[in-house]
Amino acid sequence: MTPDQLDSVFSALADPTRRAILARLTEGDANVAELAAPFSMSQPAISRHLKVLEQAGLISRHRRATARLSHLEADPLREATDWLAKYQAYWDESYERLDQLLAKLESHPPSTDNN
Amino acid sequence: MTPDQLDSVFSALADPTRRAILARLTEGDANVAELAAPFSMSQPAISRHLKVLEQAGLISRHRRATARLSHLEADPLREATDWLAKYQAYWDESYERLDQLLAKLESHPPSTDNN
Repeated sequence: MTPDQLDSVFSALADPTRRAILARLTEGDANVAELAAPFSMSQPAISRHLKVLEQAGLISRHRRATARLSHLEADPLREATDWLAKYQAYWDESYERLDQLLAKLESHPPSTDNN
Repeated sequence: MTPDQLDSVFSALADPTRRAILARLTEGDANVAELAAPFSMSQPAISRHLKVLEQAGLISRHRRATARLSHLEADPLREATDWLAKYQAYWDESYERLDQLLAKLESHPPSTDNN
């Protein structure tokens, strides 16, 4: 995946409607009307979101009879996760520091005033 | 993390300079001049990127003597990864289908024409 593709994927994910569309597509392929149903949004607005998702490679679109169905393509999400995974050491580290602090507090609790 | 925060995190990650800044900060805190050095970009341009990263919670900024240092805050990256992890089943599934196809091709190779 090129930096440009990673830009498109993260940019496509930076919208709650587009993330909700991807979540819906985990249940199966759907047409624009089905995808628009849960939102107070017009079909053309949903179509614009689908175009962004398609350009990022996150969905593909195919015809079944007269319906144009969207299909989840999860592979770019794997690439995005691979990029994020490099940072896991850093958030693990901050939890480790927190654990150490908690352990320290447990072995030497701050003196409490019983008045 | 609220949907709005997830929007800001993914949006902040949708830029190669900002991703490179985060990568640089894994090596330690840095000031604007140090962060600007690898890019053909002015310090004000880098400062604007830092502001986006700070608003997304991906960096914090603190003063050491006269220097204003940026520090990586990896926690929002964990949240973004958690969101993406829900889709792991779907990319695993597509690899499984590919594996099955390859196994099928190996046990029943397509007939080749030896002419």
